[in-house]
Amino acid sequence: MFATMGALGLAPTAQAATREPAFDAPRKSDFTLSGKGAAKVVIVGGGIAGLTSAYELGKAGYECTVLEARDRAGGRNFTVRGGDTTTDLYGNRQTAKFTDGHYMNAGPARIPQWMITLDYCRELDVPIEVFTNINADAYIYNESAGMTSPMRYRTAKADTYGYVSELLAKATDKGALDAELTSDDRERLIEFLKDFGDLGDTLDYTESERRGYSVVPAAAGTPEVRCSNVPTASEVLATGVGRYFSFEFGYDQAMLMFQPVGGMDQIPRAPVRAIGAPKVRTGCAVTKITDTGGGVTVTYTQGGRTHQIDADYCIGALPPNILAKIPHNLGTGVQSALEAITPQSAGKIGLEYRSHWWESDHNIYGGITETDQDVVHIWHPSYGFHGERGVMIGYYNYADTADAYAKLTPKERENRAVTTGVKIYGDKYLTELASSFSQHWRQFSHQEAAWHDTPGGPDDARYKPLNEPSGRVYFAGDWLSYTAAWQHGAFTSARKAVTALNRRVLA
Amino acid sequence: MFATMGALGLAPTAQAATREPAFDAPRKSDFTLSGKGAAKVVIVGGGIAGLTSAYELGKAGYECTVLEARDRAGGRNFTVRGGDTTTDLYGNRQTAKFTDGHYMNAGPARIPQWMITLDYCRELDVPIEVFTNINADAYIYNESAGMTSPMRYRTAKADTYGYVSELLAKATDKGALDAELTSDDRERLIEFLKDFGDLGDTLDYTESERRGYSVVPAAAGTPEVRCSNVPTASEVLATGVGRYFSFEFGYDQAMLMFQPVGGMDQIPRAPVRAIGAPKVRTGCAVTKITDTGGGVTVTYTQGGRTHQIDADYCIGALPPNILAKIPHNLGTGVQSALEAITPQSAGKIGLEYRSHWWESDHNIYGGITETDQDVVHIWHPSYGFHGERGVMIGYYNYADTADAYAKLTPKERENRAVTTGVKIYGDKYLTELASSFSQHWRQFSHQEAAWHDTPGGPDDARYKPLNEPSGRVYFAGDWLSYTAAWQHGAFTSARKAVTALNRRVLA
Repeated sequence: MFATMGALGLAPTAQAATREPAFDAPRKSDFTLSGKGAAKVVIVGGGIAGLTSAYELGKAGYECTVLEARDRAGGRNFTVRGGDTTTDLYGNRQTAKFTDGHYMNAGPARIPQWMITLDYCRELDVPIEVFTNINADAYIYNESAGMTSPMRYRTAKADTYGYVSELLAKATDKGALDAELTSDDRERLIEFLKDFGDLGDTLDYTESERRGYSVVPAAAGTPEVRCSNVPTASEVLATGVGRYFSFEFGYDQAMLMFQPVGGMDQIPRAPVRAIGAPKVRTGCAVTKITDTGGGVTVTYTQGGRTHQIDADYCIGALPPNILAKIPHNLGTGVQSALEAITPQSAGKIGLEYRSHWWESDHNIYGGITETDQDVVHIWHPSYGFHGERGVMIGYYNYADTADAYAKLTPKERENRAVTTGVKIYGDKYLTELASSFSQHWRQFSHQEAAWHDTPGGPDDARYKPLNEPSGRVYFAGDWLSYTAAWQHGAFTSARKAVTALNRRVLA
Repeated sequence: MFATMGALGLAPTAQAATREPAFDAPRKSDFTLSGKGAAKVVIVGGGIAGLTSAYELGKAGYECTVLEARDRAGGRNFTVRGGDTTTDLYGNRQTAKFTDGHYMNAGPARIPQWMITLDYCRELDVPIEVFTNINADAYIYNESAGMTSPMRYRTAKADTYGYVSELLAKATDKGALDAELTSDDRERLIEFLKDFGDLGDTLDYTESERRGYSVVPAAAGTPEVRCSNVPTASEVLATGVGRYFSFEFGYDQAMLMFQPVGGMDQIPRAPVRAIGAPKVRTGCAVTKITDTGGGVTVTYTQGGRTHQIDADYCIGALPPNILAKIPHNLGTGVQSALEAITPQSAGKIGLEYRSHWWESDHNIYGGITETDQDVVHIWHPSYGFHGERGVMIGYYNYADTADAYAKLTPKERENRAVTTGVKIYGDKYLTELASSFSQHWRQFSHQEAAWHDTPGGPDDARYKPLNEPSGRVYFAGDWLSYTAAWQHGAFTSARKAVTALNRRVLA
């Protein structure tokens, strides 16, 4: 039967999913062959969408200028290193004290295999390494379920899968599924469950080496000693550990995941090099966008002085909430569409430690600890294993929780995060701490959002004025994609704008 | 209730498992303080157990000499690079043609977080990186179940977990588990299953984004298109894909796993540097071990000439099947114990490709494809992502299957492996191939085994003569541990021998 499915093309095939059917990259030959001249384009915003627009148009000979308000390109792709200074909207000023070679990716931090982001890493020679999104030896800590010490992922999974398998195997064995399954199905299901849940011949889950050892197997004389005191099914269900397992099945979160070697900002640095750094003007805050009919005029301030740039076209690649604050003559349709998209909060704190105590004391090399605390996720570093120092992410939280942390001073944020960490990891979470740096995107000028909610999805009718050019102005950003908050969305949205602009110029 | 478990210490705790309670490392101060002199030790075999013995004894001032029959130390820790030449017992001579910087780990290739191997990497400054043991985007190919094209792990998992969850949720909902579970339990279980299986409100598994997309979500105008034609529960069970899932729950195989950067042989190279290369004599095949009562005399040949070395003690760190062939006067107990341990077969082929077509065409970055074919496992490389060339492991098989491949010429092995690979990955598996190198341990001189089966376990009474010194001769190797085939077993067995020897010298 499966043979038939394969033959009919019904089985999922070996081919990779199509990434982007519509991208028609501008080429130098578009102009050398047609005799037409490439246009002059001003790009407002030097995040991933803006840089990609300039990079792709630049390949075909377009004359692009990128205007970026901050002192660096990359937008939310922000890798914090020692010496980086920020001031948030509450006036908190921080200077990162991370040791040379250490960093935190304050914005995007992981890349799935299917995203176009990896294609740009390949094209732009940005080396990548595994991002440790899941680790069987990382912890789960659900204090609200009464846990007073963390449980390892592997233990939680062994117990959950064990009991789920036992319950289903026994129900099947008792005939409860006779209506749903054939006898062949039932036999195969039970065989699967015995293996999946590590069940005994009586279909009971009693214990499993998968749970872990209190003494690991070693030389003769030192057999394994398994973790004892297996909880009951009822106890396992009450811990709520099972809620974390589906994370790793997600199309965007399943391992293997990747990151650039040396920090996520290796990605924006590469197109800046390709475009030519002088064409990416930092410290330029745009104050006005005017469609003049025959072109676009963009006004901006740099070093306290007002400048103006004229171009044939403009690509608006700022976050929608920032773009909405800039005076323009693009019409009320554009303005209401921008205002319909709502900024979202998220925060992260990087904690630099003087030692890799999580490796030496806990045997945890990378991965994420999940909690029901307001730190939500705690990340172990994915680089520098066995190194002297290392940067953990002490919280990665969202929405109101992130906003609550944002209201604290940086030192108070650190204290609050570390107090939680100590409950899970012990005293070294405090005593080995060297410094911290916290980033809250909703309270970060020129961004004021970690990402955006686009009610109805990016193709909803209300966003039509943004998905088409408004006169000579195009729009691009992850917020105009189906993968908001991912660089993939910014890359593909920029490619869409570039394709449309180029077709128009060539028409 | 869980609070009580934690308070009573019943919950699995945050502490790492104890790795090796009995290791009492020899120290320089053992001798400087006692006034005693360290002894002279000859170590037979320069694999991990032999090198570790010399390294640990050397720290305390012992005068150690390692005798290694091959032209390199490391034993089964063998990283094959361009120019490496081998001749197997059938007379097949191969010279690896891998490009500079590329390699295959013909022996051990992965390290779990809990193994002592990582402690040695830390101590000896051997950098490590993630070994990609599991990948949601890798394939499963069960031809015997009628599959004519591979299925991605993520798809197989989504369908299997989906139907398992549906079946159990519905059985629970219908009351089939009322005797086993309280109503709180049932509610929690159903909530878990809905999330775990991506079930709808009616508890049906119909489809899931976890299965994958035929068109990935991108910019506005390009919403996701999900893989269609979800198989039935009966069809999923018939594919047999579920049998592969428990691999990743194993205490020794769960991600995250690690490997040394640049090849597994960075591990033996490090103690060789620490011991001093001249003390690790390669090309020295031992021909006789004699306990003289007051010492040990080891006879060996080097360059066709016979030599002899006298020492206070000897550590026999060869594989048991090789040791059993060397004349000695250690008694019949030792000899029968050695002969009771049986050598096992395994083989691997490294396939160097001219491009990383698995990344560009399949979006597979690392990981293992599982098959029901005689290649068994196909490994994608865990290093050099986006590189120009890369080495896949085209088969990793065992027992009779490995022996059947061993009987072929290297070219025939390559052809057979590639023919299978083409069925799974398409033509590039053949057309992009640059060269191959195959290694079969059972047919490899001075080893003649990939690992060993120790009936009854290493502490069985029949191995007592090996677990204690035989006069002045000690034994060490992964085959005398509870983790045969893992370097951890060799490290810990060596530490056990070293501890005992040192205590005796100090007594």
